[in-house]
Amino acid sequence: MKITKFGGSSLANAKQIKKVFAIVKADPDRKVVVVSAPGKRFSADTKITDNLIKLAEQVRDGQDTDHLLAAIEERYMDIIAELGLDQTIKVQIEENLKKMVASSYSSYDQLLNTFKASGEDNNAQLVAAYFNQNGLPSKYISPEKAGLYVSAQNGHTHVLPEAYTNLEKLCHVQERIIFPGFFGISKEKHRVTFSRGGSDITGAILAKGLKADLYENFTDVDAIFAANPQIVAQPQKINHLTYQEMRELSYAGFSVLHHEALRPAIMANVPIRVKNTNKPELSGTLISKTRATNDYHITGIASSRGFMSISIAKYLMNEEIGFVAKALKIMSEHGLSVEHVPTGIDEISLILRADQFKSAADEESLLQELQQRLQADKVYHEKELALLMIVGEGMVSTVGTAAKAMTALAAAGINLKMIDQGSSEISMLFGIDAADEKRAITSLYETFFKANK
Amino acid sequence: MKITKFGGSSLANAKQIKKVFAIVKADPDRKVVVVSAPGKRFSADTKITDNLIKLAEQVRDGQDTDHLLAAIEERYMDIIAELGLDQTIKVQIEENLKKMVASSYSSYDQLLNTFKASGEDNNAQLVAAYFNQNGLPSKYISPEKAGLYVSAQNGHTHVLPEAYTNLEKLCHVQERIIFPGFFGISKEKHRVTFSRGGSDITGAILAKGLKADLYENFTDVDAIFAANPQIVAQPQKINHLTYQEMRELSYAGFSVLHHEALRPAIMANVPIRVKNTNKPELSGTLISKTRATNDYHITGIASSRGFMSISIAKYLMNEEIGFVAKALKIMSEHGLSVEHVPTGIDEISLILRADQFKSAADEESLLQELQQRLQADKVYHEKELALLMIVGEGMVSTVGTAAKAMTALAAAGINLKMIDQGSSEISMLFGIDAADEKRAITSLYETFFKANK
Repeated sequence: MKITKFGGSSLANAKQIKKVFAIVKADPDRKVVVVSAPGKRFSADTKITDNLIKLAEQVRDGQDTDHLLAAIEERYMDIIAELGLDQTIKVQIEENLKKMVASSYSSYDQLLNTFKASGEDNNAQLVAAYFNQNGLPSKYISPEKAGLYVSAQNGHTHVLPEAYTNLEKLCHVQERIIFPGFFGISKEKHRVTFSRGGSDITGAILAKGLKADLYENFTDVDAIFAANPQIVAQPQKINHLTYQEMRELSYAGFSVLHHEALRPAIMANVPIRVKNTNKPELSGTLISKTRATNDYHITGIASSRGFMSISIAKYLMNEEIGFVAKALKIMSEHGLSVEHVPTGIDEISLILRADQFKSAADEESLLQELQQRLQADKVYHEKELALLMIVGEGMVSTVGTAAKAMTALAAAGINLKMIDQGSSEISMLFGIDAADEKRAITSLYETFFKANK
Repeated sequence: MKITKFGGSSLANAKQIKKVFAIVKADPDRKVVVVSAPGKRFSADTKITDNLIKLAEQVRDGQDTDHLLAAIEERYMDIIAELGLDQTIKVQIEENLKKMVASSYSSYDQLLNTFKASGEDNNAQLVAAYFNQNGLPSKYISPEKAGLYVSAQNGHTHVLPEAYTNLEKLCHVQERIIFPGFFGISKEKHRVTFSRGGSDITGAILAKGLKADLYENFTDVDAIFAANPQIVAQPQKINHLTYQEMRELSYAGFSVLHHEALRPAIMANVPIRVKNTNKPELSGTLISKTRATNDYHITGIASSRGFMSISIAKYLMNEEIGFVAKALKIMSEHGLSVEHVPTGIDEISLILRADQFKSAADEESLLQELQQRLQADKVYHEKELALLMIVGEGMVSTVGTAAKAMTALAAAGINLKMIDQGSSEISMLFGIDAADEKRAITSLYETFFKANK
C-alpha cells in the first residue's frame, strides 16, 4: 500500500488534477492520496494559502472581505467548471467558505489556523468529487474523522501518539482515500496547521500510521539532483539516497523536501519516492535507510549562503578549562545559534547564520562583550561566507574522497576558510567566500560526476 | 647583546663545561649566561634536581639525609676536581648545601623550592669560578641580587613587572654574568621555582629585561626538525620558524622547547636561536616574528597521541540554541578540558586528552550523564586517537596545501577521523587512529619535504 502525496503545483488547475487522477488510477496500491491546496498556475500567480492568510487578517481588522473571498472561491469554481463537476461540490465549497468566515473563534490564532487549513480541506473534497464522478470510488476523509490529533507547543506542532493508532483504522476503508494535507486537530477539536513542510508531513504521518510500503511524493521536478540546477547545467539525477544523506543535503540548501517533514515516515522506515506529476514515467529519486554503493563516491553537493564567522584568539586557550563553553554560553545568552566551532590552537571560530543579528550595532557590541568576558587577545568577524558540503555514504569507505575534493577546490583557486569533518563521516563541510560558491560547486561537480561518466 | 642559556646536558660534566666556556669566550656579545643544574651524563644517570627533590622529602619525613646529600655534593666535587678548580668554590658549595639542609622553613613548599633551586644556583657559582680561573672575567649574579621578583599563584609562577626594570640594570655589569636558571624570588625573599620549562624561562625573562638582540638556547640537538626524528630518519632541519609556527608545533608534540617558557622573549620580540653545545658551528634554528617564505609550503609536521573523542548525536541539534554550550558545560563541570569540537549536522565530537579520566567507570558515567542531560540520541567514544598537525605560514598563500596533504594521507590509506582547520590558517589538524601515526607522518614528510629536493 502506498501513500501518494501531491504538491500545490500538481493541483493548481483542472489539467493538473486530470494528471493526478491518471496517476492514482494507474496503480491500485495508491490507496491514500494526500492533497495540497491549489498552488500557483504561473509564476506571478498567488497561492490560495497566501490569500487565506490575507483574508484572516481582514476579518481580524474588521475590513471588507467580499473581494478576497470571491477571488478564493473563484479558484475552486474555475477548476470545478473546467472539470465539469456537478453542482453538489460547488455548493459544498461555497458553504464551507461562508461558514468559515461567519464562525466565531476564541482567538486569532484559532481563526488563522482554520482559514489556512481550508485551502487543503476544500481541495480534498473537490478531488474526491472528481475521482468519484470519473469512476474511481473515493472518499474524502478529514483529520477530524481520522483522529489525526496534534498539540501545538512553542510554535511547533507535534503529532500525538494516539493519532497513529487512529490512522491505522483507515486500512479498512474500501475506496481510495482523499486526505487534506497540512493540518491536524487539537484535542479540543480545533484545526492546527503544521509549522513547516506543508502537506509533506501529513503524507509522512499517514505513511507511518498506515504502515505503508512506500510514500510517494509527487512534485514538479524530475528527481533530486546531485547539485543545484541553477549553478550546474543539467546535473545528474540522484537515483537513490539514504535518509541520512537526505538529512545532510537538506541542511545545506537542498530544498526539494524538508527532511523534518518526512521524519515520521523515516522513523517508521517507510521508503520515500520523489516523482514528477508531469512525467510520472520517470523513476524519480528513492530515499531509504540504506542503498547499494554507486560509482560516484559522493551523492550530492550542496551549499548555503548567509553564514558568518566570529573568531576568538587567546594565548593558551586550550589549557583554560571551559573556554569554549564560556564563549558558547555568551552566544546562547543572546539567543544566537552557533552551528560549527572549528578550533585551532589558540583560536576558535564560531560559525553562525548572519541573519540572526538585527543590526551592525548588535554585532559590534557582541564582539566587545566576547572580548571582555573571555579576556580574549583578539575577536574579529568575517561575513559573506557560504558553507559547502559534499555528502555520501560512500565517503567512509573511500579514503581518497577528501583528497579528491580538496584537489578540485585547489584547482579552482578556492581559499578554504574552514574545513570540518566530524565523526559522522558521511559529509564534509567547507567554509568559503560566498563569492566563490559557483566556482567551487562547478569544480566539485566536474570532478565527482563528469569524470566518472 | 645576547642572552645565552645552556641546558642540563650541556653542563653535566667537566668536558661539557669546557665546551660552554669556549662558546661563551668566542663571542663578546654573549654577556649573560644562564645555566641549568648538571643534567644526566648517561641515560641511566640521575638528574641533580631529582635527587634534590628526594632530599627534600627525606628532610620532611625526618629520615637520614647523609647518603643522598653526599651523592649530590659528589656531583659538584667531581666536576670541580676534573676542572682543576681551587678550594674556594669547593668550600663554598659544601657550605651552601650544609646551610640549605640546616635552615628552617615556614612550610614544606618553601623548603622544596629552596632545595630545587640550589641545583642551578650552585652550578652557576661553579661555572663563574671556572670562567674566572681561565681568564674570562665573570660574575655570578643571583635572582636575589638581580631583583628577579615573582609571585606564585595556583601552581603557576608569574614574573612581577618590576623584575624587568630591575634586570635592566644588569647592563652595567662589566664582566660576563653567570645567572642560575629555574627560579626567582618572592617579595618575602623566598626562592620560587618556575612551573615548567626549567631554565628556558629565566633566559627568556633576561632577554626581555635586558632587551637582548638574541636569545641563544643551547641544547643537545642540532636544530628543530621538520618531523619527529624517531619516526622519520634524518628529517630536514628547520632553518627559520616564526613564533606562531613554534607555538602550533609545540602544541602537537614538538618537545625541544616549551613555547610558554619562551613567552617573555617572544612578547619583547627577541629572536631565539636553538643551537647544539656539541656542534656550535651549526647554525641551528632561528625563531622570530616573521620569516621569508621557503620552498616547502609547510614548516613542520607534528603529532601527539593520547587523545580520545566523545561523539554526541541528536536530531536537529543545530536548531537547538546553546546545545554545544550545554555539552561543553557538562565537560567543564567535571574539570575536563576539551580541545577541539568538530561538528557535523546532527552530531558533534569532543576531542580531549584521554589521561584526564581516572577510571573507565568515570568515563562511562560521564557518557551516561551527557546522554541524559542533553537528551541525546546517541553518545559514544573512540579512544587511541592521535592528532596530526601540519604547520606553516606558507599555507595561507598556497591554496593547494590542504589538497596535497589529503592526497598524501589517502595514498597511505589513512582514515581521517576528523579534519579541523579554523581561521588561523597556518595549521591544519587531522584526527587519526594512533596506530596510523607513523605511516601518516612518513607519507606527509615524503610529500612535502622529499619531493621538493
